[in-house]
Amino acid sequence: MHVLVLGAAGMVGRKLVERLLKDGRLGTGEISRLTLHDVVAPASPEKAGFPVEIVAGDFAVAGAADRLIAGRPDVIFHLAAIVSGEAELDFDKGYRINLDGTRMLLDAIRTAGGGYKPRLVFTSSIAVFGAPFPDAIGDEFFHTPLLSYGTQKAIDELLLADYSRRGFLDGIGIRLPTICIRPGLPNKAASGFFSNILREPLAGKEVILPVSEEVRHWHATPRSAVGFLLHAGTMDLAACGARRNLTMPGLSATVGEQIAALKRVAGDQVAARIKREPDPFIMGIVAGWPRNFEAKRARQLGFTTAESTFDDIIRIHIEDELGGKFVD
Amino acid sequence: MHVLVLGAAGMVGRKLVERLLKDGRLGTGEISRLTLHDVVAPASPEKAGFPVEIVAGDFAVAGAADRLIAGRPDVIFHLAAIVSGEAELDFDKGYRINLDGTRMLLDAIRTAGGGYKPRLVFTSSIAVFGAPFPDAIGDEFFHTPLLSYGTQKAIDELLLADYSRRGFLDGIGIRLPTICIRPGLPNKAASGFFSNILREPLAGKEVILPVSEEVRHWHATPRSAVGFLLHAGTMDLAACGARRNLTMPGLSATVGEQIAALKRVAGDQVAARIKREPDPFIMGIVAGWPRNFEAKRARQLGFTTAESTFDDIIRIHIEDELGGKFVD
Repeated sequence: MHVLVLGAAGMVGRKLVERLLKDGRLGTGEISRLTLHDVVAPASPEKAGFPVEIVAGDFAVAGAADRLIAGRPDVIFHLAAIVSGEAELDFDKGYRINLDGTRMLLDAIRTAGGGYKPRLVFTSSIAVFGAPFPDAIGDEFFHTPLLSYGTQKAIDELLLADYSRRGFLDGIGIRLPTICIRPGLPNKAASGFFSNILREPLAGKEVILPVSEEVRHWHATPRSAVGFLLHAGTMDLAACGARRNLTMPGLSATVGEQIAALKRVAGDQVAARIKREPDPFIMGIVAGWPRNFEAKRARQLGFTTAESTFDDIIRIHIEDELGGKFVD
Repeated sequence: MHVLVLGAAGMVGRKLVERLLKDGRLGTGEISRLTLHDVVAPASPEKAGFPVEIVAGDFAVAGAADRLIAGRPDVIFHLAAIVSGEAELDFDKGYRINLDGTRMLLDAIRTAGGGYKPRLVFTSSIAVFGAPFPDAIGDEFFHTPLLSYGTQKAIDELLLADYSRRGFLDGIGIRLPTICIRPGLPNKAASGFFSNILREPLAGKEVILPVSEEVRHWHATPRSAVGFLLHAGTMDLAACGARRNLTMPGLSATVGEQIAALKRVAGDQVAARIKREPDPFIMGIVAGWPRNFEAKRARQLGFTTAESTFDDIIRIHIEDELGGKFVD
């Protein structure tokens, strides 16, 4: 089985590749070849039981998608995107990468010939939804994105479904929750604080909370995100019918509940490193974000999270990222 | 006021142009210039109180949209599209006209410069929805088109909303019901029978009904469609907020109710010209179509139909198309 990962240098991409290398298989299929692509070269794995090819470059230029699928990958994980802030600031770039790039990939597959029909797993986003929302967004709620990024993802979802319906590929789009706890350095994205307020105190550092403790949001661990991708890459898609885009399960929690979990798992002294400095700009942005989803359909189709409480989310971070230890 | 109509040679386009010529104004604005475009040259009006320019050609080629908006029309009615059957048969053509053509128009407006920000009225379609449906489709029901045509329209809606949100234009998308009674020759489209079974008997001709009388569908007269377009071209769009695409009001009726109305308005002898010949192919297609909508939001925003019963639909056809007379 030949697996291609687009956006392999990103956070979720790296975690997915680590797991593919560790397992050596995807579902019942043994991996015989792995192609890793990103705009900057993804790290070359130190040891792998099969050939790994590294490709760097812009995938939204003429011919790039054709070259990427020239080796006829059986499963394609398409995680490549310009993030929401950049897509909002640079209109042309956002549409070029997030819409045209994806369409070029779909068209390269469609016109490849020889009966080529790969599994395509596409990471969409809850940004396809825009306020006002019901308390919990159902699986049949409409898409009214309030950012160009969400617009581009919603369009990609429609293309993916149509190309699947026409038999050109076997596609599935998954809308990931906000990833928490996001490893690495503090993120300047408006959503960064959801992870920062947990990750930084666990590393012994002070951190600023820019919103009120009542703010509610939708979360899943990096471990769950990788689990969703693997399931999407292997499940029988006949059960999806024509509705190929799914909101993934997650945990709805307020910032106050996040902090309470941090206290339970790591102690009051760790949680005391959170400093409250309300930022009206960030509060304004966050007010338009989804808070909770039903995600019934994805659960029925076998998508499961690795965590069932916010305490689990923190424990998984300590286990997967901190070698089991934190600064208390 | 300069008005541009794209798709001016189509049935709805012709009716809209007739009305604009008759009124000489759009809302409170006096029309000073009219540009009519279609792939084949729209008919040149015999007398108009203002200059009328006729443009024929493919609008989805480089530079065409820039030329169409070179005169900076204040209001653009964009009705141009490849119909659903053709978009399904010719994948490339459907995407090129229905998606790329619309995007080229939006981008021509975006990059026109000089603070140009026209009103853009786009005709979308109830084909953005795909079965299974609730009994009456609400305004927040999601878009899962089951045809490439519906996919293209749903994508155009997303683009229209994003370009409006970013301030490039003042756009509104309206999803028209199936037009009934559609004037002209019997239509070979799968939906043609909804009009054929009324129009042909009123003209003294026999007609075939290919489905059962229980089939329910969503209708509006050509007169209502023109009314929707005029309202969309003149209303204050601030009330729409970021949600710029609306399902238009209509009448939900079964084929049996259509026939009963025909009997009431024109008599049993006219309705007797309908011959029942069930066609499993057409029945299969129609089974996946929407039957009923709530359309609350459009009504709240001032969209109204010219008809309140199916009897009205038949009377309006006799009045507008048959000079008040039918063959009894």
